[in-house]
Amino acid sequence: VTAATVPGRRIDGFDVVAFDADDTLWRSEDSFVHAEHRFTQLVAPYVPEGVDLSEALRAAERADLPISGYGVKAFTLSMARTAMTLTEGRLPAAVIGELLDIGWEMLSEPVQLLPHVPEVLAALSPHVDVVLITKGDLVHQDRKVKTSGIAHHFAHVEIVLEKDVETYSTIIRRLGVAPSRFCMIGNSVRSDVLPVLELGGSAVHVPYHITWEMEHVEGHGRAIVELASLADVPIWMGVERF
Amino acid sequence: VTAATVPGRRIDGFDVVAFDADDTLWRSEDSFVHAEHRFTQLVAPYVPEGVDLSEALRAAERADLPISGYGVKAFTLSMARTAMTLTEGRLPAAVIGELLDIGWEMLSEPVQLLPHVPEVLAALSPHVDVVLITKGDLVHQDRKVKTSGIAHHFAHVEIVLEKDVETYSTIIRRLGVAPSRFCMIGNSVRSDVLPVLELGGSAVHVPYHITWEMEHVEGHGRAIVELASLADVPIWMGVERF
Repeated sequence: VTAATVPGRRIDGFDVVAFDADDTLWRSEDSFVHAEHRFTQLVAPYVPEGVDLSEALRAAERADLPISGYGVKAFTLSMARTAMTLTEGRLPAAVIGELLDIGWEMLSEPVQLLPHVPEVLAALSPHVDVVLITKGDLVHQDRKVKTSGIAHHFAHVEIVLEKDVETYSTIIRRLGVAPSRFCMIGNSVRSDVLPVLELGGSAVHVPYHITWEMEHVEGHGRAIVELASLADVPIWMGVERF
Repeated sequence: VTAATVPGRRIDGFDVVAFDADDTLWRSEDSFVHAEHRFTQLVAPYVPEGVDLSEALRAAERADLPISGYGVKAFTLSMARTAMTLTEGRLPAAVIGELLDIGWEMLSEPVQLLPHVPEVLAALSPHVDVVLITKGDLVHQDRKVKTSGIAHHFAHVEIVLEKDVETYSTIIRRLGVAPSRFCMIGNSVRSDVLPVLELGGSAVHVPYHITWEMEHVEGHGRAIVELASLADVPIWMGVERF
């Protein structure tokens, strides 16, 4: 960052900078991909050849979403129920036990922060209120925040059911911030970027190498700010190099 | 209610009246008790005589709470994992399938409102903001609220991880209400009454015929207002008979 960028810094235009959590601040989707892989290996011997177990699991997840929601517990139930259905009861109990253990490991595993997270939060927090907005399971997300080692940076933590225009509107109102002075940063165009732009806020897309199928968006006709790394956020905002 | 009680009505002292949901507005614990009963019947043939399956399940629930939290999904995982552990893999897959189905039925079953709920909410809502504060699973509680037929009465709905002093303090601040003008109504002394009194608010205990073990409290040395039925709430508050 050159001195020239410091006057009129972007960060001076914001009162609140909010971050998504899963796959923005810490790894999440990797565990699901790994679990799906173990699921297919464990169940494959008990289904006819040619059954696409990954596809079946994803279809079950989509179907179960309105009832069981996002998160590891819902995913674990979808895995176990899908395995039962596809094998018509031929599955040994020990295999179901292993599927349940996979879920339990996911719920218990320590948070793996993505690169640069502590420095980026430390660079921004003297200038703005830093907020965390994540969807998913209440107890799992809360435990991840509390054990992450970065909880002290957040002025507020919001764990929500859906990250849509209505949810952001409520949060922005609660925070008492003008939408134009609110900036959201996350890995999902659908959940972190588009609804915030819709409300007149700012948003930055920091892609992760895997995007959960249900976060994919079709063409949306908006130019969005994309940064390759979280480390680019303070630079883009004009905050002194950290 | 006689005319004499109307001047100086209690309701005029409140801006917000908040209700707990599970076992205050709709049935919840009955389903867990029924599920526990089915669990013991299904698993008993595969464990040595004398194993107390109910006690084992409750111990597992308590142990799992910090990882999997409150709610039906956590309970279902505790049932399935407890059954696996106690039977050392002798359990037929079909039985585990039935345990998973019990959980799914609990997640999907329609809301059963307790008696008088719609009339009580209708009687209070012209006078105060009526709010719902419940803990549990985000998606399940949200779906219960939305399908309950009473959602239109609530000015706010808060689904929280724990109902403790800190949580109520945050909610009361967010609502912009003075604690002295906030009244909480619910079936749990531990979660609905004591933390609110601690903050200088009012609270009414409306007991349910079953209290979840983890909501039990030891002697707390406070005089608390207890009403036998939700229908007594508007009368106690001095609202005209409905």
